[in-house]
Amino acid sequence: MRFFLIFATIAASAAPTAAFTTISGIARTAPSSTTTSSVVLHATAADINGTDKKKIIILGGDGFCGWPTSLYLSDQGHDVVIVDNLSRRNIDTEMGCDSLTPIQSPDVRVKAWKEVTGKEIKFVNLNVAKEYDLLVQLIKEEKPDSIVHFAEQRAAPYSMKTSKTKRYTVDNNVSGSNNLCCAVIDAEVDAHIVHLGTMGVYGYGTSGGEIPEGYIDVILPGGREANILHPAYPGSVYHATKCLDALLFQFYQKNDQLRITDLHQGIVWGTNTPQTIKDERLINRFDYDGDYGTVLNRFLMQGAMGVPLTVYGTGGQTRGFIHITDTARCIEIAINNPPKTGERVEIFNQIAETRRVRDVAKLVAEQTNVEVNLLPNPRQEAAENELDVSNRKFCNLGLNPITLDAALFDEVTEVVNKYKHRCDPTKILPASFWNKKRAEECASLDPSSVKINV
Amino acid sequence: MRFFLIFATIAASAAPTAAFTTISGIARTAPSSTTTSSVVLHATAADINGTDKKKIIILGGDGFCGWPTSLYLSDQGHDVVIVDNLSRRNIDTEMGCDSLTPIQSPDVRVKAWKEVTGKEIKFVNLNVAKEYDLLVQLIKEEKPDSIVHFAEQRAAPYSMKTSKTKRYTVDNNVSGSNNLCCAVIDAEVDAHIVHLGTMGVYGYGTSGGEIPEGYIDVILPGGREANILHPAYPGSVYHATKCLDALLFQFYQKNDQLRITDLHQGIVWGTNTPQTIKDERLINRFDYDGDYGTVLNRFLMQGAMGVPLTVYGTGGQTRGFIHITDTARCIEIAINNPPKTGERVEIFNQIAETRRVRDVAKLVAEQTNVEVNLLPNPRQEAAENELDVSNRKFCNLGLNPITLDAALFDEVTEVVNKYKHRCDPTKILPASFWNKKRAEECASLDPSSVKINV
Repeated sequence: MRFFLIFATIAASAAPTAAFTTISGIARTAPSSTTTSSVVLHATAADINGTDKKKIIILGGDGFCGWPTSLYLSDQGHDVVIVDNLSRRNIDTEMGCDSLTPIQSPDVRVKAWKEVTGKEIKFVNLNVAKEYDLLVQLIKEEKPDSIVHFAEQRAAPYSMKTSKTKRYTVDNNVSGSNNLCCAVIDAEVDAHIVHLGTMGVYGYGTSGGEIPEGYIDVILPGGREANILHPAYPGSVYHATKCLDALLFQFYQKNDQLRITDLHQGIVWGTNTPQTIKDERLINRFDYDGDYGTVLNRFLMQGAMGVPLTVYGTGGQTRGFIHITDTARCIEIAINNPPKTGERVEIFNQIAETRRVRDVAKLVAEQTNVEVNLLPNPRQEAAENELDVSNRKFCNLGLNPITLDAALFDEVTEVVNKYKHRCDPTKILPASFWNKKRAEECASLDPSSVKINV
Repeated sequence: MRFFLIFATIAASAAPTAAFTTISGIARTAPSSTTTSSVVLHATAADINGTDKKKIIILGGDGFCGWPTSLYLSDQGHDVVIVDNLSRRNIDTEMGCDSLTPIQSPDVRVKAWKEVTGKEIKFVNLNVAKEYDLLVQLIKEEKPDSIVHFAEQRAAPYSMKTSKTKRYTVDNNVSGSNNLCCAVIDAEVDAHIVHLGTMGVYGYGTSGGEIPEGYIDVILPGGREANILHPAYPGSVYHATKCLDALLFQFYQKNDQLRITDLHQGIVWGTNTPQTIKDERLINRFDYDGDYGTVLNRFLMQGAMGVPLTVYGTGGQTRGFIHITDTARCIEIAINNPPKTGERVEIFNQIAETRRVRDVAKLVAEQTNVEVNLLPNPRQEAAENELDVSNRKFCNLGLNPITLDAALFDEVTEVVNKYKHRCDPTKILPASFWNKKRAEECASLDPSSVKINV
C-alpha cells in the first residue's frame, strides 16, 4: 500500500492547482479539485485509501464531524455502523438553538444515503457512557475492524458554562472513553480504536518550539533522554477530558495491548463534503451559536449575515485549522495505518495549517465586507500566542490538506445564505464564561443587540 | 509558625531513639516515642502543628486512612466534619469480606469519640461523586478552611477485577474529584483542597533518577528548560484515576485559582494510631484480603496467622511505605501549609522510606517464623525496579517519619492475634488479575488451599 501512496502523491503533484503551504517547513501542493454538484470541493481521496474494506463502528456518527466521516467511509466501500445517542441534538433543545442547516433525523439520513448510493449504513441509538452492556454486545456482534470515537461533548464553551455542563462533559467523555476500552477488552475483538483528540491538549505556546505529534523528546535530570507524552495544558474542561482520555489510552494500550490511535485535531471548518451534498437530506449540521459555533464557521456565517465578526480579545490566538472534508480523509488514513499490537498509542496532529484568529477574521471581513468587532474575551487564555505544529505524519501518508481558501469560503457562504432565515441572532454572542472574572468582563455584551440582514 | 517548627525539630532531635533513615540522602532521626495505652506508638505531632484551629471536611472520613486522620485532626482541636457514603463497607459486603478488626458504625464511632474526648465530629452520609447539590450545600453551610479528599476507590486490585470495577473506579474517582472542584467554585468558599494521590502516578523507575515531588525539571527540544508535572505512568486503573485527578487539579487551579495540595502517598501500613486505641469502638479497619490488604499489613497478618507470606513474582518491586500514624500527621502539615492563591498545585511525596517487597517479606518472615511463598504475579508490572524518591518537603516541614520497625510490627501482630478468629482464609490469595495473560499465569492459585492457625 505504501507504494501505491507514493505513486498517487506524485500523480497529484503533477497537476498542482492551489497555493503552497509551509506548515512545519514542508512545502506541499494542495490536491487538484473536482466539481461536485454546484460546489467546488477537493477530490475524494482516492489517493489515500487502502484497498481493504473494513467494518467500522462510528461512535458519535450523527455529529458535525461524525456524520460526514460516516458517509465518506461508506462511500469508500467500508461497512459503517453509526452509534449515537443524539446528545448533540438534545443539547440544541436544551439551549434553544438549532443547526443553521435543516438536518434530518438519523432514519431519514441513512434512508437517503441508501437511495442515493445504494449503500447501507446501520444506525444504533446507544449511550456509550451509560449503556455499557449494549456497547459490548454490539462490538461482539459486529466484530468491527475499527471503532472511531467521536462520542464526546465537544464544545469548550459549553463545557465551561455551568457546573452542570462541566460535570456532564467530564462524566460523559471520560466514562465513554473508559467504557470503550473496557468493552473492546470484554468483547475480545481486536478492534483498532481511532479517537478524536484535540490540539488543545498541548496548550498554546508551551513546548518551546514546534509541537510534535503526541510525544516530545525531553532530557530528564541526570541527562537521560526520554520521549514522553507531551505535557497536558488544557484550556477548558472539554480540553481536559481529552487529556484524561490520552492517559487512559496509554494505560490500556500497555496493560491490554489495545491498538489505539489518537488524533489531535484543530478547529474544523466548512460544512459540506462531496458526500453530504449528494442530497439535501444528507446535509451536515452547521453551528453558529456562541457555544458550538467554531471560530471560522462563525465568522463566515456572520459575514454572510452582514453582522460584525465576533473576535474575542485581541484575536491574537493562533490556532490550527482543518476542513471538514479532511477530517474524514484523516480518519480513513488513521484506520488504514493502525499501530501494531504492542506498539504505544499512535498520535497524529490532524490539522492543515495554523492561523491567527484576527488574520482569519480579516480574510473573512475583506471578502464579505463586514466589520471586525473585538469583544472582551470570555475565555481564560493567553491574549496572544505563536503556534508551530508538526503534521508530517498525515502528509507522509498522502494527505494534501485543504487550506483556507476563498472558493471554500464561498461554499459556506452559499449554505449560510440558503438557510439564514433559520438563524436566531440572539445566540451569536458568547454565552459561556470561563470564570467569574471573565464573566464580569463580558457583562456588557448584550445578546439582543445583534441584528442580522435577512 | 515556621520558627515553632524549627524549635520543635531541634527538641525532638535532642532525644533520638530510633534508627537513621537515609531516604533522599537526608539523614534524619525518628522521633522519640511515647507509650499510649499498652501499645508503643510515636508521639502525636505536637511538633508539627500550627496554632490555627480549622474547620475541616474529610471526604471519605470513614475509611482506612480517613478515619484515623479525622480522629487525629479532631484531637488536635480542629473542627472535623466527616463525609462518607460508606462505599468501602458496601464493597466488603459485595466481596463477602470484612475488616479483620470489628469496626463500628459511623454513629457509634463518633459517639464513642465524644465520650472519650469530649470532642464532636459530625458525620454526613453523602456520595461525593453523585450527590453534587448536597455537596455544594454542605460546603456553603460549613465554610471549611480545608477539605481533605480521600473519597476514592483506593484498591488497585479491585480496580482491575472486572470491567464493572474498572468502570466504577473511573466514574467514582474522576467524578468525585471534578465535583469537588466544581463545588468549591460554586459554593464560593476559598477552601484549600488536600487530595490523596499515590506514588503510583510516577510509575516505577522511569524518571532516570530520584523521583521529585510532583514536578520534574526537563530540557525541551531547542534547549528550553521547563518544570513540568512528572509524566504519568499508572500501573492500574486505580492509579490512572489519580493521574486524571492531577490534570483536573492543574486545570482548576489555573482557571479558578483554587488552592490545592496533592499528596502522593506510598503504601500505608499499621492499623492503630494514638487516637484509635483510646477505645475499642474507635478501632480502625484492617484489610487482609487479596484486593484491599496492602502488602506489609497482609504480610504481618499472614505472619501472625502462621501462613506463608504471599509475595507476587520475585518480590523485586521496590515501593514507598508510610505508617498510618504519619498519614494523619502529613495531612495536618499539608493543611497548615496551603499554597497561596494563584500558586500552582502543591505536591508532596507522602512516604517515609522505600523498601523492596522481598526484603519486607524477609523482615516479617524472620520475626514471625513463617515461610515466604513466591506466587505468580497477578499484576502487569516490572518484576524488579529501583525506587529513589524525594520526601524532603514534609521533612523540611517537621515530619520525622516512622519507619519499618519491629515494635510497630508487634503492635499489628497484637491486633491480628486478637481478631484472627474473624479471618476468612479463602480471601487471602490474589483475586484480581491485571489482564488475561496474568490471569492464566495465576490459574493454579487455589484460594481454599490457605489454612490458618487460629
